[in-house]
Amino acid sequence: MNRMEIRHATNTDHASIAKIIVPIFRAGETYTIEPEISETDAIAYWMAPDKTTFVAQIGEEVLGTYYIKANQAGGGSHVCNCGYMTSEVATGRGIASAMCRHALNVARSLGFEAMQFNFVVGNNLSAIRLWKKFGFDVVGKLPAAFKHPAEGYVDALVMYRAL
Amino acid sequence: MNRMEIRHATNTDHASIAKIIVPIFRAGETYTIEPEISETDAIAYWMAPDKTTFVAQIGEEVLGTYYIKANQAGGGSHVCNCGYMTSEVATGRGIASAMCRHALNVARSLGFEAMQFNFVVGNNLSAIRLWKKFGFDVVGKLPAAFKHPAEGYVDALVMYRAL
Repeated sequence: MNRMEIRHATNTDHASIAKIIVPIFRAGETYTIEPEISETDAIAYWMAPDKTTFVAQIGEEVLGTYYIKANQAGGGSHVCNCGYMTSEVATGRGIASAMCRHALNVARSLGFEAMQFNFVVGNNLSAIRLWKKFGFDVVGKLPAAFKHPAEGYVDALVMYRAL
Repeated sequence: MNRMEIRHATNTDHASIAKIIVPIFRAGETYTIEPEISETDAIAYWMAPDKTTFVAQIGEEVLGTYYIKANQAGGGSHVCNCGYMTSEVATGRGIASAMCRHALNVARSLGFEAMQFNFVVGNNLSAIRLWKKFGFDVVGKLPAAFKHPAEGYVDALVMYRAL
């Protein structure tokens, strides 16, 4: 069985990354991104200049991706933000966990002092469970801040942990 | 005495707006913006394409400015975000209050259903008092998320109200 490797994303990963992130944007259930975003714009968003983007692969197959960036500039630049996505065909294989563990180490090595998730959709229970397992606290609840395509208005959570 | 007027900002307002916002960015006490930001970049930020920017003037003098924008895209696009700044020489004249009242009406007319302030620096007591007066609740507290130039680490608040 092949081991998981997490490495910096490069331009040659665009197609693999798009295959993961575009369906998740299209579903419109977890990210505050226009579901109709083009593939080009989706990649431009995920690999924007202010982000450092990684991919998780098993063998030759890219099955997850995440980015890390400063959540704010100036007096807020010691806190980072991440976005994670796992291929819909690869859930339950520990990819999100491995990426979160990796991200916490990368964040520390970059000198960040805390990590914040700005908008965790309240009915995304598997994500909330995972972030709590990794030491994140719910520090904010945004009432009815997300319009879920199936469930309608749901709260969004702000989650935070020191590093 | 001249009445206050609040109107859409235009390109001819750049110098007046810069005179208000650049010193506040330089101080680095209330916005998570690089204090050394150039005047050009400050204007580009404050009048970015995704923002609608207003100025408050008394007679010919622009004494305040604010922007309104969608806080998120996709399923979060019914919540708006604003940034407000009052000229340092004009505090205590009701300019921030007038802009907030104006913004709440603009937000409703644009179809937004809630307004969120993502990062209110915890020692900015006059701002917190004002937003509470206008019906905003503290829905989140980001521990030590701001490094204040004089006071060091302080919490930041997330404030929110339905419209």
